[in-house]
Amino acid sequence: MKIRNRLRKIVEENDTRKGRFFDNAIQFLILISLVSFSLETLPDNSDEFNVILKYVEVVSVILFSIEYILRIYVSQKPFKYIFSFYGLIDLIAILPFYLAHGLDLRFLRIFRIFRVFRSFKLIRYNKAMRRFHLAANIVKEELVLFLMVAAIFVFIAASGIYFFENEAQPEKFSSVFHSLWWAIVTLTTVGYGDVYPITVGGMVFTFFVLLVGVGIVAVPAGLIASALSKAREMEEKEKSL
Amino acid sequence: MKIRNRLRKIVEENDTRKGRFFDNAIQFLILISLVSFSLETLPDNSDEFNVILKYVEVVSVILFSIEYILRIYVSQKPFKYIFSFYGLIDLIAILPFYLAHGLDLRFLRIFRIFRVFRSFKLIRYNKAMRRFHLAANIVKEELVLFLMVAAIFVFIAASGIYFFENEAQPEKFSSVFHSLWWAIVTLTTVGYGDVYPITVGGMVFTFFVLLVGVGIVAVPAGLIASALSKAREMEEKEKSL
Amino acid sequence: MKIRNRLRKIVEENDTRKGRFFDNAIQFLILISLVSFSLETLPDNSDEFNVILKYVEVVSVILFSIEYILRIYVSQKPFKYIFSFYGLIDLIAILPFYLAHGLDLRFLRIFRIFRVFRSFKLIRYNKAMRRFHLAANIVKEELVLFLMVAAIFVFIAASGIYFFENEAQPEKFSSVFHSLWWAIVTLTTVGYGDVYPITVGGMVFTFFVLLVGVGIVAVPAGLIASALSKAREMEEKEKSL
Amino acid sequence: MKIRNRLRKIVEENDTRKGRFFDNAIQFLILISLVSFSLETLPDNSDEFNVILKYVEVVSVILFSIEYILRIYVSQKPFKYIFSFYGLIDLIAILPFYLAHGLDLRFLRIFRIFRVFRSFKLIRYNKAMRRFHLAANIVKEELVLFLMVAAIFVFIAASGIYFFENEAQPEKFSSVFHSLWWAIVTLTTVGYGDVYPITVGGMVFTFFVLLVGVGIVAVPAGLIASALSKAREMEEKEKSL
Repeated sequence: MKIRNRLRKIVEENDTRKGRFFDNAIQFLILISLVSFSLETLPDNSDEFNVILKYVEVVSVILFSIEYILRIYVSQKPFKYIFSFYGLIDLIAILPFYLAHGLDLRFLRIFRIFRVFRSFKLIRYNKAMRRFHLAANIVKEELVLFLMVAAIFVFIAASGIYFFENEAQPEKFSSVFHSLWWAIVTLTTVGYGDVYPITVGGMVFTFFVLLVGVGIVAVPAGLIASALSKAREMEEKEKSL
Repeated sequence: MKIRNRLRKIVEENDTRKGRFFDNAIQFLILISLVSFSLETLPDNSDEFNVILKYVEVVSVILFSIEYILRIYVSQKPFKYIFSFYGLIDLIAILPFYLAHGLDLRFLRIFRIFRVFRSFKLIRYNKAMRRFHLAANIVKEELVLFLMVAAIFVFIAASGIYFFENEAQPEKFSSVFHSLWWAIVTLTTVGYGDVYPITVGGMVFTFFVLLVGVGIVAVPAGLIASALSKAREMEEKEKSL
Repeated sequence: MKIRNRLRKIVEENDTRKGRFFDNAIQFLILISLVSFSLETLPDNSDEFNVILKYVEVVSVILFSIEYILRIYVSQKPFKYIFSFYGLIDLIAILPFYLAHGLDLRFLRIFRIFRVFRSFKLIRYNKAMRRFHLAANIVKEELVLFLMVAAIFVFIAASGIYFFENEAQPEKFSSVFHSLWWAIVTLTTVGYGDVYPITVGGMVFTFFVLLVGVGIVAVPAGLIASALSKAREMEEKEKSL
Repeated sequence: MKIRNRLRKIVEENDTRKGRFFDNAIQFLILISLVSFSLETLPDNSDEFNVILKYVEVVSVILFSIEYILRIYVSQKPFKYIFSFYGLIDLIAILPFYLAHGLDLRFLRIFRIFRVFRSFKLIRYNKAMRRFHLAANIVKEELVLFLMVAAIFVFIAASGIYFFENEAQPEKFSSVFHSLWWAIVTLTTVGYGDVYPITVGGMVFTFFVLLVGVGIVAVPAGLIASALSKAREMEEKEKSL
């Protein structure tokens, strides 16, 4: 029972030297497995290199599995951990490997990238994050309202451009759904150049859409700036009390 | 007369359970009819699917018509409702259907998307919106001034690029109006890539236009951020009184 | 002498009904002449339409000339007006017309667009502009410093991409000057798509350039937001005194 | 020994007339050598022009070498200067010239652009920079946190688009590393148009990536705005004490 307590200190906390080492080792392992996952997608890997990547994969999954079992073992409420956000991600990170031996479930691998979110655990309590959290709470209502207005605006933009361009470019603006792609690419000012209006009506419409669209970037920037100022102020008031 | 009063509570207000249900049902109906409108524009729908969409259309127009008549019936000043902003939109949302039976007025359908604005009624009084409204009032003058300067700047940019590029690309920069398209796409940093300068003069000109153009995004962001901070402050002062 | 005084009230001020009418008429004339200038650049105008535009041109230049002479006549210090910023623009707006009769100096027409700046006179004293002016003064030093750093950064980005891409795309990145075009189009996030890196080195370099480049937009937005907040605060302190 | 003191005043400080002249001369020389470096990269230079550029190069390197030796000579702690940031840049700026005579080390020339950073020395102590420095200190934690989250987000976006587009466009999205290029170009809203999704899945995924991606620009803008406001406040408090 004493060992479990000592292990818990190492696995769950990071205020001791051993605890920090454990956390850093896991972090390093996550990075290694992410790099190996990325390298695996390269099209021209030699067979030898793929074998090495396979070994890295097997070793990291084994270590992650040990970590997962450890976390369940040391947890005071194992079921709470298993069904927590990070518990599920820990499971999803190792599950595809075991399942993939029968069927080809390689596509489930995509969830492995969530491993990276575990790194948040290490910084979860730091001061800057608390300030972000505070700012997010302050700005929540406005951000939801803004997103609603933005969604309505995107829909109107898509419907409008469909009306103007559908006849001239039936392949690119073939439906409102296709036009939504144009709307989001234009309003975020990405502008790939794969779809753009060519009729005079469509161009004039885009002109007015963009006039408002600049605000699509300006408003959230303003909201976040104002909320962060507020969060900092509140923090200081707290301190001075 | 009593029934009218009870109906009014349901149709116009949303502080009772029935009122909220009525509002949510209408919201849901708007969403359904918008999705059906979008699906209708898909080019490769099967005939059966189009029949289903037609039915959805008919049913939603009937329900909207009933809602419209109800709103007139329960309203204490029916004419004020009919000629109010939302009253007109409610009418425009159903009118094309009735008109389209004689002539092909399908293009009037585009106004149906304004139905979505009705959703604002539900949130009109909420706190965040009031803050946006306050901020908009604070920033009104600056925003108008900024828009004027921006409009002048866009015109100068268009005239300048026309002067530099017209000879080299007579088809793309064929007039100041065509160059306006370049100016708005460039200054909002969308940059589709359909028109861009190719002469050295045009490139150097664009260089300087973009130096100032970054402000086109930065200034409104700053204005809105500063106004929202101010609005929040004013709100708090009010509270503390 | 009395007439001169009465004319001065109309021409130079806009706090009387006649003064406002004079100003609005001039504004309207500027708009007309700008629209006619833009229409003239259209490639497929009919001969009749060009004749009409020519008439509009002649009439507006005559009226502007009368206005110019009036302004000199009523001015208490005529030479100060003639060599002031707006005095020179007023002259430049009409000069090309008189010069163009001998030689083809049509290209000087480009300066006509500066007429539009005259509209500033009408709003020069309004409150919002004063606040912008105040904010500009507050932020001047930071903005100059930022522009210097941005210029250095643009130069480094251009030199770097030249180093990486010159060999692979000798026509697009043929010198540091050509690469400057890429740098400004990329860092302002316009991204036309006419020039972009294709080598791995160039892509990785662009990756890091863009990481910093996001700040190129974020910093001036922050500067302006912070200055406008400050300007508003100062204004209120003044009022409360 | 007295000469060394007098020279130090000229070389290291800029509060005397001679010191300012020395600094301005060096600044001018840096500009000249940067312009000459840029001109050298032009592809169609005549032989005579290249000879002139070579002379400018030789003269500026000689002058920079004299400056470098002077700085070591007058410095009270020569080794501290040599291994300081600016000392190393001063050396790197002249070293390639001497090394290039044996081997072709022209590519080391790229470091010459760092010369431009020396200009910072002149303004290092100015007030605006101090405020930037203060703001950077305030915002450091949040900026690091934000960069971490942004890096994670970029990686997820790249992995996701690889999953959706790899099959349809194996040449453009051939690995997660290739997809990173798409992710950074899209999330900074540059959008060159060389890579973009063409599958429905990829487009929908991009839609959601961009919704969050707008914040990638909005958050740092907000952070910097809020920090600069704070820095200005702190400065004023200091003054009023």
